[in-house]
Amino acid sequence: MTEPVRDAARIIVTGGTFDKRYDAIKGELTFTETHLPALLEQGRVKLPLAVDIRLLIDSLQMTEAHRQQVLEACRESPELSIVVVHGTDTMVQTAQVVGRAALGKTIVFTGAMVPYSVQGSDAEFNLGFALAAALTLPAGAYVAMNARIFSWDDVEKDRGEGVFRRP
Amino acid sequence: MTEPVRDAARIIVTGGTFDKRYDAIKGELTFTETHLPALLEQGRVKLPLAVDIRLLIDSLQMTEAHRQQVLEACRESPELSIVVVHGTDTMVQTAQVVGRAALGKTIVFTGAMVPYSVQGSDAEFNLGFALAAALTLPAGAYVAMNARIFSWDDVEKDRGEGVFRRP
Amino acid sequence: MTEPVRDAARIIVTGGTFDKRYDAIKGELTFTETHLPALLEQGRVKLPLAVDIRLLIDSLQMTEAHRQQVLEACRESPELSIVVVHGTDTMVQTAQVVGRAALGKTIVFTGAMVPYSVQGSDAEFNLGFALAAALTLPAGAYVAMNARIFSWDDVEKDRGEGVFRRP
Amino acid sequence: MTEPVRDAARIIVTGGTFDKRYDAIKGELTFTETHLPALLEQGRVKLPLAVDIRLLIDSLQMTEAHRQQVLEACRESPELSIVVVHGTDTMVQTAQVVGRAALGKTIVFTGAMVPYSVQGSDAEFNLGFALAAALTLPAGAYVAMNARIFSWDDVEKDRGEGVFRRP
Repeated sequence: MTEPVRDAARIIVTGGTFDKRYDAIKGELTFTETHLPALLEQGRVKLPLAVDIRLLIDSLQMTEAHRQQVLEACRESPELSIVVVHGTDTMVQTAQVVGRAALGKTIVFTGAMVPYSVQGSDAEFNLGFALAAALTLPAGAYVAMNARIFSWDDVEKDRGEGVFRRP
Repeated sequence: MTEPVRDAARIIVTGGTFDKRYDAIKGELTFTETHLPALLEQGRVKLPLAVDIRLLIDSLQMTEAHRQQVLEACRESPELSIVVVHGTDTMVQTAQVVGRAALGKTIVFTGAMVPYSVQGSDAEFNLGFALAAALTLPAGAYVAMNARIFSWDDVEKDRGEGVFRRP
Repeated sequence: MTEPVRDAARIIVTGGTFDKRYDAIKGELTFTETHLPALLEQGRVKLPLAVDIRLLIDSLQMTEAHRQQVLEACRESPELSIVVVHGTDTMVQTAQVVGRAALGKTIVFTGAMVPYSVQGSDAEFNLGFALAAALTLPAGAYVAMNARIFSWDDVEKDRGEGVFRRP
Repeated sequence: MTEPVRDAARIIVTGGTFDKRYDAIKGELTFTETHLPALLEQGRVKLPLAVDIRLLIDSLQMTEAHRQQVLEACRESPELSIVVVHGTDTMVQTAQVVGRAALGKTIVFTGAMVPYSVQGSDAEFNLGFALAAALTLPAGAYVAMNARIFSWDDVEKDRGEGVFRRP
């Protein structure tokens, strides 16, 4: 039997709640560096992975230029399976930019509702979930959060509930 | 565009390192109850899920009768996407029993190298990873651990390294 | 040999970084309820303890009226050993109000530089440290943080470094 | 007002549940290295501290020769405030050896019912608690666990309940 899934992937980091960290002096959540290597170590990840840290910002501060940077990172990726770690507030918008470009790769957007640095974070679960989706789904752009997978053109965030759903 | 993945799943619990818990009086890791509800809450899982707690044992103590119980649980499942949480030591043997039965469902075996109750556990990552695999892969039995997915007839555990690999 | 220390204590909660909690919908750290019961359970505390939740606010928002409430709570306490959980920014000012009142009890102010709900928090350490100080020190008001103990009239917070020190 | 407490301490490490670590390959709790530096960093400890790693064993395996090593480490300590991190099962016996020697120092035995490496450990609380006790109590040997302090000659462990108490 042939290997049913691809055997390498790329993770593109853009920031978001996923990567916020508590600054004990300022007393607030900020960005300093990505937690991604810590998450991969915790997950004991054995898959060959490339990590591309493009941005480290809150997704509410993402401009159209930032979204073009994400699209560019996806276009340049030699791997066909890509996970984009992104803030949840504008994840859908960036997924639309990438989805419309139809790059012929499987590009899965994920993030976290609770930062990895906070107890009870969903970051580790979502990262594992998104990685498997990126390895197995047909080419296209998707949002994968909290055990649900949506196509880029069939998803919205319900901010009051903090969940993604079909419109 | 149609929904690219199934929208419900079943988790069958059998125990394993994943679910071991520290007993402060005995001073050792034992089984008391599954951590699965805690993992699902942490992952903020929004997918309709059935949970079937069949066994709560170390996989080194699994007999052929136990493996038949797992097979039976898979056969009875109305959901076509199934994750089996299993100890890693004999995960491959149980996957073979289930794989040979060719049930026409997507059945993904996963577990953990470090218990969920221990700091730095890979349980949450593996659960997310296996769930996405169960929702997206074609019918068959698989082992999904640490970001790698194997067909049931093309995998072995390297106990010295604590990893799964193709033989 | 007689028991060298008192055998009961009171904890007065006022809020502070110690008790901040991540709100996944708002995406920020807020107050909802105190973590104190969780900390006591984790510490497996066997000492008879009274818990008095007076306030649940950031110490930068403490007014003179709030400080009088803390003083009143200390005055009313039948226990002679008291820990006050307090935000670090104005902990010294409240300790001065209580210290000047010379209540004839051992009153120890503590808090955290990192919320209990954030990975790597100093809350549990500081709570244990302050409790032992409250059980053993002579009557007076003290600040006990990060393994250092200061008299109320001989301490200041260095905000740039995030530490307490003698002036 | 003079500083009410001593301003330096020594921690003598002997192992015990406190320092057990999960070995993912062997699938059991073992000793590899002490977690003490991690605990001190988490507690943001600002007190000048000497750390003396004497032993790293289960206290059930402690011989009389081991206890003499602990006594020797206490005798050699230039600091007058000492915390001994010790397994709980024979903590009382070692405290008796050290207590009878009447070294004129404050020596506080502590440990953990749940390893630091396991979620919900009492190690951080007990370390903070024991440190404050060591800085404030008169010379003598003590057991300080779970917010209770006992003199070395007035304490026993109730193994069924997993608590220390007066006989």
